[in-house]
Amino acid sequence: MKPMQLVLFLTAAVSMALAATGIAMDGSRDKAAPIYGVTIPEGYRHWEMIAPAQEAAPLDELRVVLGNAVAMKAYREGTLPFPDGTVLAKLAWKHVPSSEFGPASIPGVATTVQFMVKDSRKYAASGGWGFGRFINGKPTDEAQHQTCLACHQAQVKNHDLVFTRYAK
Amino acid sequence: MKPMQLVLFLTAAVSMALAATGIAMDGSRDKAAPIYGVTIPEGYRHWEMIAPAQEAAPLDELRVVLGNAVAMKAYREGTLPFPDGTVLAKLAWKHVPSSEFGPASIPGVATTVQFMVKDSRKYAASGGWGFGRFINGKPTDEAQHQTCLACHQAQVKNHDLVFTRYAK
Repeated sequence: MKPMQLVLFLTAAVSMALAATGIAMDGSRDKAAPIYGVTIPEGYRHWEMIAPAQEAAPLDELRVVLGNAVAMKAYREGTLPFPDGTVLAKLAWKHVPSSEFGPASIPGVATTVQFMVKDSRKYAASGGWGFGRFINGKPTDEAQHQTCLACHQAQVKNHDLVFTRYAK
Repeated sequence: MKPMQLVLFLTAAVSMALAATGIAMDGSRDKAAPIYGVTIPEGYRHWEMIAPAQEAAPLDELRVVLGNAVAMKAYREGTLPFPDGTVLAKLAWKHVPSSEFGPASIPGVATTVQFMVKDSRKYAASGGWGFGRFINGKPTDEAQHQTCLACHQAQVKNHDLVFTRYAK
């Protein structure tokens, strides 16, 4: 094996080994959220819109919750609890004044993207839901993920731990 | 023809005549918006999300703009002007405090649904766009439709008369 071939081979081998452990070549952390192992679902930005929301200070955010096909069917048919396979995506941006239309606020910089994944067996210990919070494509730390469930359980136990309702 | 048959026949005939004039049997106005003739596109609530917005007092609204497939392709590829066939839908709701999560405001009652339809020949006189504003499925009056174009032309001439940018 020539030196250059060796370099390429070793690079590939190291890359594969790291991928197996969930550590990317650029040094970023595992792409799966702590506790739940939730990852960013492919193509979620194409999902349908469930509802928008606004978050007051200090967050000052505009948010939109999207749902995959399983989620949208459940919402439209009023199915509770949500069936396994439901995935909800909450996109959030700082809200900033529009420079073009006085009364409007519009999305500024993206902040977090958060997911709820329904799998009643895998997530039996957390009401059937796995939670994942991401910033710039990377999961936030374990401490942040420890806050999800308690709040959802305290506030929306009667709606299968889901805050967002379908905006007609 | 028996009396009952005659009644059915006349009901059908009157209904067809009214349909031809755009007046529905329930007395509602024409389903096409004045000036532009824009109608509510089938299935628009399933379209992808372009961006949310918030409208300050006195409207106090949460809004989401959705786009059909032509619109989404143009947004993602940065195509300007938007190609013929682009349709944008702006959904709006009163924003009301969430009873379940203190800092959040969520959609209350739906207010207007508004559309922009790109057809550079049909709407040559209005920058290629037709506008339609609907409340409870019915178009608003001509006076309201006379306000659309001037504001869009004054504020977003450099973005093909479209305010909303894609929220990444």
